[in-house]
Amino acid sequence: MNPNFADRLASEVLAKRSQVCVGLDPSLDRMPAALIERYSNASAQGCGCGRHEIAGCFEEFCAAIIDAVAPHAVAIKPQLACFEQYGPPGLKAFKHLCNHASRAGLLVVADAKRGDIGVSAAAYSAAYIGRPQGFVAPIANLGADAITVNPLFGSDGMQPFLDDCSRYGAGIFVLVKTSNPGSAELQDLLVSDEVPAGGAVARAESRAGGAVAPGQTPRKFHEKVASLVDEWGIGLVGDSGYSSVGAVIGATHPEELAGLRKMLPKSLFLIPGYGAQGGGAGNVAAAFDSRGLGALVTASRSIIYAGQGEDFATGAAEAAERMRSELWQQSRES
Amino acid sequence: MNPNFADRLASEVLAKRSQVCVGLDPSLDRMPAALIERYSNASAQGCGCGRHEIAGCFEEFCAAIIDAVAPHAVAIKPQLACFEQYGPPGLKAFKHLCNHASRAGLLVVADAKRGDIGVSAAAYSAAYIGRPQGFVAPIANLGADAITVNPLFGSDGMQPFLDDCSRYGAGIFVLVKTSNPGSAELQDLLVSDEVPAGGAVARAESRAGGAVAPGQTPRKFHEKVASLVDEWGIGLVGDSGYSSVGAVIGATHPEELAGLRKMLPKSLFLIPGYGAQGGGAGNVAAAFDSRGLGALVTASRSIIYAGQGEDFATGAAEAAERMRSELWQQSRES
Repeated sequence: MNPNFADRLASEVLAKRSQVCVGLDPSLDRMPAALIERYSNASAQGCGCGRHEIAGCFEEFCAAIIDAVAPHAVAIKPQLACFEQYGPPGLKAFKHLCNHASRAGLLVVADAKRGDIGVSAAAYSAAYIGRPQGFVAPIANLGADAITVNPLFGSDGMQPFLDDCSRYGAGIFVLVKTSNPGSAELQDLLVSDEVPAGGAVARAESRAGGAVAPGQTPRKFHEKVASLVDEWGIGLVGDSGYSSVGAVIGATHPEELAGLRKMLPKSLFLIPGYGAQGGGAGNVAAAFDSRGLGALVTASRSIIYAGQGEDFATGAAEAAERMRSELWQQSRES
Repeated sequence: MNPNFADRLASEVLAKRSQVCVGLDPSLDRMPAALIERYSNASAQGCGCGRHEIAGCFEEFCAAIIDAVAPHAVAIKPQLACFEQYGPPGLKAFKHLCNHASRAGLLVVADAKRGDIGVSAAAYSAAYIGRPQGFVAPIANLGADAITVNPLFGSDGMQPFLDDCSRYGAGIFVLVKTSNPGSAELQDLLVSDEVPAGGAVARAESRAGGAVAPGQTPRKFHEKVASLVDEWGIGLVGDSGYSSVGAVIGATHPEELAGLRKMLPKSLFLIPGYGAQGGGAGNVAAAFDSRGLGALVTASRSIIYAGQGEDFATGAAEAAERMRSELWQQSRES
């Protein structure tokens, strides 16, 4: 039996007094000059496409960040998109970094935002938190402890991920309310559960009157998703009182965050948007319980690019420690 | 100036009298026995993990399918999840197959269902249809002509994909109504555009009464997404009358398909679920105009596993030709 993901996280949070998750979103135009010089020289002497060398540059940079922040953070959240754009060498760097972080004692949340149906959903789950089918036995995956998942497909698209959470002690974080300004466009639509028979014409002709029945509280699309997250997570609640099925909720939406915490008392929150995107420690305090448990707060650019030049890792360590201390204090005061 | 994706597709459809897109969803337990034997022997003599050999097996199988279906189909739709679960070697096989299909005269729709915000969305777009940043100049991507995209993040998450469609003559297919049974759970919720001030408590206390204003026709979440697809595609309509911003709509929902065609007269439809998932040619006829343009219909398992043993490619060619002929006839009768 693998230990429950939420319990593993809780024990790390209490041991390190940290709820910090460092986002690894490497971008070529932000790499330190010394690394760029070394890897671009290598590229000029190689095939010239640069894909392997850029992936190598990202790997060296991120590995140094991992080592630097490991005492202050409990998890890293590598952004798949950054690695995937450099193809197979990029994905290899991602895999190496997952393993590197595990060896450094950090949990790994693959920020993949995957979602699909049937066997495709099962394959994505296998890739990150399950075990892909091999010739003779299941084989090792890319090396994450948890993955971010897009819920648009509904419960049947989610099931393979939930199964792997049970089997392997893994976790998922379901996108509930993302941190971008445009998140309101679809995620804040008012919705009703009532699905009428017939198409749009039949509905226009019916006297339905509204999407919400009289007396029913209108709720937003992301609140409906939150109610599903609660259902999906029931079977995966650990000794810590939290479920391995968590919710992604942007730090840029403090009001929603407090409301969603009431709706989802057992869900781990993964809260991006701290730092560079504008959310501060006060914005996220409502996510924590009195023990300081209940949420992972992520910052990416404000930590990984905090240092300059040769000292980039030292700068990242200082920024991570500052964030740890701010968050721990705020979470204990709330 | 790159030619518009929708126009490139239209010219292939008319030249081949085909609207067939073959889904490449390789699964280890469906590979022909001779391939399994050869690659599992190689794996036993190698590191034993099997990742490279399974990726090699998928590549050989899919390349043979591509060659076999190339006269009958206009596009292939490789499913990223199938490849990604085998890590970097899997992604390398995916890349090789994209290039192989292009050389065989087929358009490539990467079934990646990606979606994210800001620089991450831009990186996903760069990976498949744009150009990732290099040391001295942008570098080549994984080799797709179009990609499936998840719209949950809203317009700002979509913008990088739209920009690359303009720049590089690429296409996107936005998930509107997926083919799985559970798609109704979120995609068929009745919605209102009205976003009220305040949180859930303020809304409960207000006398809003319903999510849809009196006199307004209630519409489903996926119809709201469809209206956005229409807006996103306006600037990308080509000479064929179709936009390079298309919509994914399952063949398993014939009624919705007809309604969405009326709402989206300029959108290319990508229609999965033909064959193994239960949708037939009659179900999709409404998607086509009188020229036979307007949609790509995809079948995966019913084509790629149609043949048995050594003759798997011949079986796939026959199944693809049968589907081409059925679809072309149906689309011209409708």
